[in-house]
Amino acid sequence: MSVPVAYQGNTSAAVADWLNKGDNAWQLTASTLVGLMSVPGMVVLYGGVVKKKWAVNSAFMALYAFAAVWICWVVWAYNMSFGEELLPFWGKAGPALDQAFLVGRASLPATAHYRADGTLETAMVEPYFPMATVVYFQCVFAAITLILVAGSLLGRMSFLAWMLFVPLWLTFSYTVGAFSVWGGGFLFHWGVIDYCGGYVIHIPAGVAGFTAAYWVGPRTKKDRESFPPNNILFALTGAGLLWMGWAGFNGGGPYAANVDSSMAILNTNICTAASLIVWTCLDAVFFKKPSVVGAVQAVITGLVCITPGAEVSCRVGRRWLWACWPAVCRGTP
Amino acid sequence: MSVPVAYQGNTSAAVADWLNKGDNAWQLTASTLVGLMSVPGMVVLYGGVVKKKWAVNSAFMALYAFAAVWICWVVWAYNMSFGEELLPFWGKAGPALDQAFLVGRASLPATAHYRADGTLETAMVEPYFPMATVVYFQCVFAAITLILVAGSLLGRMSFLAWMLFVPLWLTFSYTVGAFSVWGGGFLFHWGVIDYCGGYVIHIPAGVAGFTAAYWVGPRTKKDRESFPPNNILFALTGAGLLWMGWAGFNGGGPYAANVDSSMAILNTNICTAASLIVWTCLDAVFFKKPSVVGAVQAVITGLVCITPGAEVSCRVGRRWLWACWPAVCRGTP
Amino acid sequence: MSVPVAYQGNTSAAVADWLNKGDNAWQLTASTLVGLMSVPGMVVLYGGVVKKKWAVNSAFMALYAFAAVWICWVVWAYNMSFGEELLPFWGKAGPALDQAFLVGRASLPATAHYRADGTLETAMVEPYFPMATVVYFQCVFAAITLILVAGSLLGRMSFLAWMLFVPLWLTFSYTVGAFSVWGGGFLFHWGVIDYCGGYVIHIPAGVAGFTAAYWVGPRTKKDRESFPPNNILFALTGAGLLWMGWAGFNGGGPYAANVDSSMAILNTNICTAASLIVWTCLDAVFFKKPSVVGAVQAVITGLVCITPGAEVSCRVGRRWLWACWPAVCRGTP
Repeated sequence: MSVPVAYQGNTSAAVADWLNKGDNAWQLTASTLVGLMSVPGMVVLYGGVVKKKWAVNSAFMALYAFAAVWICWVVWAYNMSFGEELLPFWGKAGPALDQAFLVGRASLPATAHYRADGTLETAMVEPYFPMATVVYFQCVFAAITLILVAGSLLGRMSFLAWMLFVPLWLTFSYTVGAFSVWGGGFLFHWGVIDYCGGYVIHIPAGVAGFTAAYWVGPRTKKDRESFPPNNILFALTGAGLLWMGWAGFNGGGPYAANVDSSMAILNTNICTAASLIVWTCLDAVFFKKPSVVGAVQAVITGLVCITPGAEVSCRVGRRWLWACWPAVCRGTP
Repeated sequence: MSVPVAYQGNTSAAVADWLNKGDNAWQLTASTLVGLMSVPGMVVLYGGVVKKKWAVNSAFMALYAFAAVWICWVVWAYNMSFGEELLPFWGKAGPALDQAFLVGRASLPATAHYRADGTLETAMVEPYFPMATVVYFQCVFAAITLILVAGSLLGRMSFLAWMLFVPLWLTFSYTVGAFSVWGGGFLFHWGVIDYCGGYVIHIPAGVAGFTAAYWVGPRTKKDRESFPPNNILFALTGAGLLWMGWAGFNGGGPYAANVDSSMAILNTNICTAASLIVWTCLDAVFFKKPSVVGAVQAVITGLVCITPGAEVSCRVGRRWLWACWPAVCRGTP
Repeated sequence: MSVPVAYQGNTSAAVADWLNKGDNAWQLTASTLVGLMSVPGMVVLYGGVVKKKWAVNSAFMALYAFAAVWICWVVWAYNMSFGEELLPFWGKAGPALDQAFLVGRASLPATAHYRADGTLETAMVEPYFPMATVVYFQCVFAAITLILVAGSLLGRMSFLAWMLFVPLWLTFSYTVGAFSVWGGGFLFHWGVIDYCGGYVIHIPAGVAGFTAAYWVGPRTKKDRESFPPNNILFALTGAGLLWMGWAGFNGGGPYAANVDSSMAILNTNICTAASLIVWTCLDAVFFKKPSVVGAVQAVITGLVCITPGAEVSCRVGRRWLWACWPAVCRGTP
């Protein structure tokens, strides 16, 4: 057996024993793709889909949220989501800025879990890349969640109120879901599996958006009667970045450039394409005219629905229709 | 010799013996870059370059085609292009959705070829990543081919007719070229080499576009006399994504993150830049004014022309001008 | 110890002993991300931020510069920046197109440096990928520098003058800075460290822009009094690609998908987000209104400032505020 010098550990440029550069390359790429979904993806999607008078404000809400989440995330919220357990649904706040922590091997959740008899219940996941990569990947997840919430508030909320809402909701709501399901909290212990964010990201964003929209109240009557989108091509630019960026979203879930990542990306695209085709055909049948705004909604619907079970695949046959949906067999070799 | 734990096969997170995560990371990234060329690249390129009244319709044609190709591809067309041989120019239709197939090692074409005396003529290519990655990569290739065909029909065809045209042309034309040249068909046996799609993608798209435009007929006299582009900046957004995304197109051809990939990307950029500079200078000389629309055409011309031989490079000297063109020596170490 | 076949050197698809596919995958991805910052990033940022009458011209200046730099780079400028020493601040001009050179292992700078007593002073860096990848990565760096210079000249300079300016400035200015600091020149010997381009890219671009703007002279009085941006959403599209693409800019600096890359990307995002938040808050306090154009400037400021020291990180505690700034301790394990 011969191994090229480039993979050996005793070369002059030796790296940490636990570093797989293929995994790190993919995770950094995937994180950047998720970042592109928000900035400029959601920024121009919002700017394009609302009325012209709200375009710049809506785009700015998304851009601001991205930046604000970054600061909160590394100063206190990462550890509330993935750090040491404080309560069954919350981690202890604290900065994720320490050099020794960030350059060390990734390991999450931070709390090991033991059964009453002292045996290990759930081992930590230890990907082959540094903690810094995990903090980056999880930060862009948190950021897009806030931006999804913004969608319910476009044209209804003052920018200054939004500036306060972002750190508050991140701190008191997002971290709870993230810790409970992914960070070693009580839902994690109950065996809840959320492959890549259906429960941690889309449901909280939906509930928060619905609630916030209820409290903020409806738009004016005039605005409700006529809501022409500012610019469809910007909406399509954003929707396209969302679709392709989702390869990083669901493909980054396994924390490795492995077979699961490939399967997740394939399933994500199949589901989204199916959603677009069905929606467009229904528009053609019931409204006599395919609609591009409908297609954009279909894309988002497809992407969101596949997310919690994107690595799942089925055997072909009577069941191939289920290939794009969580199902009985798992795609992990 | 010491090999880091992260590359060993007997660790707790052991993966398939044939999985190289660097290759898989690159192939997933390359595929996503090719996806970005179409969505949102070609979507907004078309929306920006046509007359304002056709902008949304043209963009939607591209978006629809991307989604429709995905469904046809995984349900029957992948196997017509790369599956078991049915005829010398066609594979057997069948779904590419089976879990065992998708999570297994990539291998293509599906049919092994033997000489009359029973000796192996052409071995399969077996990249170091799963079949799911290949299905993804080849799907975005097929999708952009349909979108290139759309370019000849913008503003001339009803959307409903396009909805039918996409699956029909993919099924009865694209699969024939793909199987014949890449999938183990008769051109493959004759030794035709198409590095990354000149014959499979650009020539069929050109012929189909020309033919379809002939049958659909010209645009109205008024439209032919005045054809101001809707929005140059959207056209440039699309052209830019096309150029950079081509790093995935030609860089993904070797099915590995190897030296060929690097060479192909370098050659692609050199050829495209040369095309833009020459076109712009000719515009300046003959029309007294450089033209940005000419530059966009130059970018597309350069990208398309380098594609069939992008991994080829030459020794420097009298021949350096040929560096961006298929030539006598191959760049593969 | 068992190593999967996919990483062994004696397989049928054996590659060069020095090729790490994870590193090559990342470096190609990073280079493409930097390319996206320019095309379509800066192209539409310029097209969106200037007055409507200059939009197309400004965008074309950026697109042309990208193409022109490519040609000059591979024909003579790469070697003036990273090739054999001619003078302490300049390398010998010559093409970087030779096949044997490009497919060989990357190694830079080209000149080994010895002390007066004949002992080696500085060893070359030898990344685990081919020279072609380095030429690509460094070319997109050079290209964006020219595009930054263009920013000072938008709406002030004829396109034909710009066509001459690009090759001249690249040849007589950029190469000097690049060789002196990175290519083995006198600043390199003095121990100047520029992690990813503060001195080689942003300072020269700033000085050149300032000087050129001085010589070209101010815009007309009317234009100075009223300068409404053409389209904020295009400016945001460009700024977003700039921000996310910087993951390739600073993440590509270590020439490997290692821990430094992860740290650099994390620091880059933290600094940029902090800049945006501070700028927006100051706008809110002093002008009573957050400004999206201010936010775009803040993004660019943050990205540029972190670049020379992006891989640096600090221990937490009283010093965590410094995490996004070059500081006393280095983040390299």
